[in-house]
Amino acid sequence: MTAPTSRDLTVTEVRLTPVLVADPPLLNTQGVHQPYTPRLIVEVVTADGTTGLGETYGDTKYLELARPLADTLVGHQVADLNRLFAAADQVAVDASRVFGQVDVGGLRGVQTADKLRLSVLSALEVACLDALGRSLGLPVHALLGGKVRDAVEYSAYLFYKRAGHPEGVAAERDDWGAALDPAGIVAQARTFTERYGFGSFKLKGGVFPPDEEIAAVRALAAAFPGHPLRLDPNGAWSVETSVKVAEELGDVLEYLEDPALGIPAMAEVAARTSVPLATNMCVTTFAEIKEAFGRDAVQVVLSDHHYWGGLRNTQHLAALCRTFGVGVSMHSNTHLGISLAAMTHVAATVPHLHHACDSHYPWQSEDVLTERLTFERGTVRVSDAPGLGVTLDRDRLAVLHRRWLEDDGSLRDRDDAAAMRVTDPEWVTPAMPRW
Amino acid sequence: MTAPTSRDLTVTEVRLTPVLVADPPLLNTQGVHQPYTPRLIVEVVTADGTTGLGETYGDTKYLELARPLADTLVGHQVADLNRLFAAADQVAVDASRVFGQVDVGGLRGVQTADKLRLSVLSALEVACLDALGRSLGLPVHALLGGKVRDAVEYSAYLFYKRAGHPEGVAAERDDWGAALDPAGIVAQARTFTERYGFGSFKLKGGVFPPDEEIAAVRALAAAFPGHPLRLDPNGAWSVETSVKVAEELGDVLEYLEDPALGIPAMAEVAARTSVPLATNMCVTTFAEIKEAFGRDAVQVVLSDHHYWGGLRNTQHLAALCRTFGVGVSMHSNTHLGISLAAMTHVAATVPHLHHACDSHYPWQSEDVLTERLTFERGTVRVSDAPGLGVTLDRDRLAVLHRRWLEDDGSLRDRDDAAAMRVTDPEWVTPAMPRW
Repeated sequence: MTAPTSRDLTVTEVRLTPVLVADPPLLNTQGVHQPYTPRLIVEVVTADGTTGLGETYGDTKYLELARPLADTLVGHQVADLNRLFAAADQVAVDASRVFGQVDVGGLRGVQTADKLRLSVLSALEVACLDALGRSLGLPVHALLGGKVRDAVEYSAYLFYKRAGHPEGVAAERDDWGAALDPAGIVAQARTFTERYGFGSFKLKGGVFPPDEEIAAVRALAAAFPGHPLRLDPNGAWSVETSVKVAEELGDVLEYLEDPALGIPAMAEVAARTSVPLATNMCVTTFAEIKEAFGRDAVQVVLSDHHYWGGLRNTQHLAALCRTFGVGVSMHSNTHLGISLAAMTHVAATVPHLHHACDSHYPWQSEDVLTERLTFERGTVRVSDAPGLGVTLDRDRLAVLHRRWLEDDGSLRDRDDAAAMRVTDPEWVTPAMPRW
Repeated sequence: MTAPTSRDLTVTEVRLTPVLVADPPLLNTQGVHQPYTPRLIVEVVTADGTTGLGETYGDTKYLELARPLADTLVGHQVADLNRLFAAADQVAVDASRVFGQVDVGGLRGVQTADKLRLSVLSALEVACLDALGRSLGLPVHALLGGKVRDAVEYSAYLFYKRAGHPEGVAAERDDWGAALDPAGIVAQARTFTERYGFGSFKLKGGVFPPDEEIAAVRALAAAFPGHPLRLDPNGAWSVETSVKVAEELGDVLEYLEDPALGIPAMAEVAARTSVPLATNMCVTTFAEIKEAFGRDAVQVVLSDHHYWGGLRNTQHLAALCRTFGVGVSMHSNTHLGISLAAMTHVAATVPHLHHACDSHYPWQSEDVLTERLTFERGTVRVSDAPGLGVTLDRDRLAVLHRRWLEDDGSLRDRDDAAAMRVTDPEWVTPAMPRW
């Protein structure tokens, strides 16, 4: 066996594999999820033969940037993450990719060159940490200062949902059924509780007029008394509407997430309600913090570790939030088990994590792992195995990559409005605020 | 040889050794350094036989807290630092130690229970990182995400200084001579340059009336044109005096450090001058950041990693400063090579380090290492050896510990005013602002 000092942790290769992953027809204010969504799987290989895994958004603009950024890693030590981030500043971002494209109708917040780089770097960082941990025999959380809890709590991520994707469109089936009214949402929440034991619930709103969504939250409160509830319309409401919803649901909401778009509107809502406001839209970069915190626009920041540039930056964000008396939790977008494992490791290290994290993962029937992560009593156990503690299933990866290769290009960039137009040709991305 | 996974990194023992270290008669606004100053040397021992080193302030109140905090570490993994910090919150701090005592006349900034804990934890954290790095074969900087530079720049730390400690007082001799006027300061600066190659200069002020110190800085500017200069009166000036000095020296100062005491006064000075203000007095805890940054009171935070709770918290601080457009650099108080090595490792990992760090180290003729750290062209090379890259000299440690044991208690708590009274019995800690 080899002593640690003799291990060669030089990065020799970075494999980048775009995939298309099945996604159910979940509704949001921009439209509906397409039947498949793009993700990028990253493998960092070191000279000692270790492979580390990472995962991030897979739309074209991320893929274009992934190769030059991955190249800055090759030949360097897998532990040299600060150098990687410094070197990445030199990698040019095609301005048209940042400013010219619709990024899921703005669902992912501000678009900047820095954020695009960080979203790709996050996958490289996680893969490096996984490789480092595997090679050293340490779990990723130990490389982040160690866990302060043995399990991380997640909330049930409820969606208004169609029964299935349109007929004639290639898609995987799901067994969740439709949820288009309060009764449907409550039924979905019951399924979540039965399958995974979640104790708190987040409803993705902005789909129906506010009164209908208020009714859905009220129905949840009646069905699950005392359980924390959240509502997230993705900025679909005016300040007035936001304040009205906050007033009507103030007694049952843990927080209201991104009711209105942008820091000024959020600050105005925050000033007029005692319901805490959470965000993964108006604060998704370090550059937005000064204004947002200065104006008390948000009370909880939901970190998508991809946006923020990985797990160490998420720890910095958590320290920043703690310093300013702002709560912190984790945001989730459609992702696979690699990112869920990464979220779980970093969440396990954050002392002041007072809200259950979000996770889309139950909606993803497909994965690239030999063994899926599981939720027990609403939590994911923090792995103490070396690295992330997950294993790549190369056959599954090949299948999902082949789907990406065979796509005609229409699904390689997530576009919820385009998916909506399949059934509703008149659909245009709604002007905000929608209500 | 042992594979990394089989290494047992459980902490089995924490050795705490207080020492008294020779210190020259350096003057500041509170008085003069005593002939010996207390430090605490920490050794964390793991089950695989590795020992990691840390160092912090050695005054009684730190020592009293060190044992209960060290005990929270025993039996846990050396990598479990977040757990250590969380557990430390439960260790009670004797309130009289925080609020009742003079802490070097306030030179170390605000006193809180949290800060006292963090100052002790910093030494435990550094020792754990040293042990972890040694055991894994990785330098400490690699455990912090890796270095972004191969050498860390330090500035010459100039002091008004007496030729020697008073006759009849046990003390080590030094070869620096006196420096009590502009010519003496310039001569001292030349010695610093010749011995260590420093390219920037910081003068500890607040000792003589401002006009004399302005003259000293002017003399430095004439002798070393174009070199960055700093002046630090430790809060001895009123707002008016601070603004006046800033106006008179604005063309040559890199920054003015703690001209006035407290965030409100610093904010007022900052609003009235374009000279950047640095601090290691009004922002020494995370709790002070919100107000200080909100009021634009400081433009550079000088992290004493002991105050902030170690190297990872210093990285959090750096991220915080970067987020708010505030500069960051490192503060130094009387310390030995373990802390200089720790500072150098963390400074090497901070991307936006735009100011040379401070170091008292050239003033310390004694150390507990087998080999002293050296300055070349004003920099300390970042070690790539496992851990901190320094080796404890047990014989030297024993000598300096014996000195502590044999002290009658008068030097176990640093007291610059008491040292002043040896030659000037009428001396009282000056009321601030002094000028």
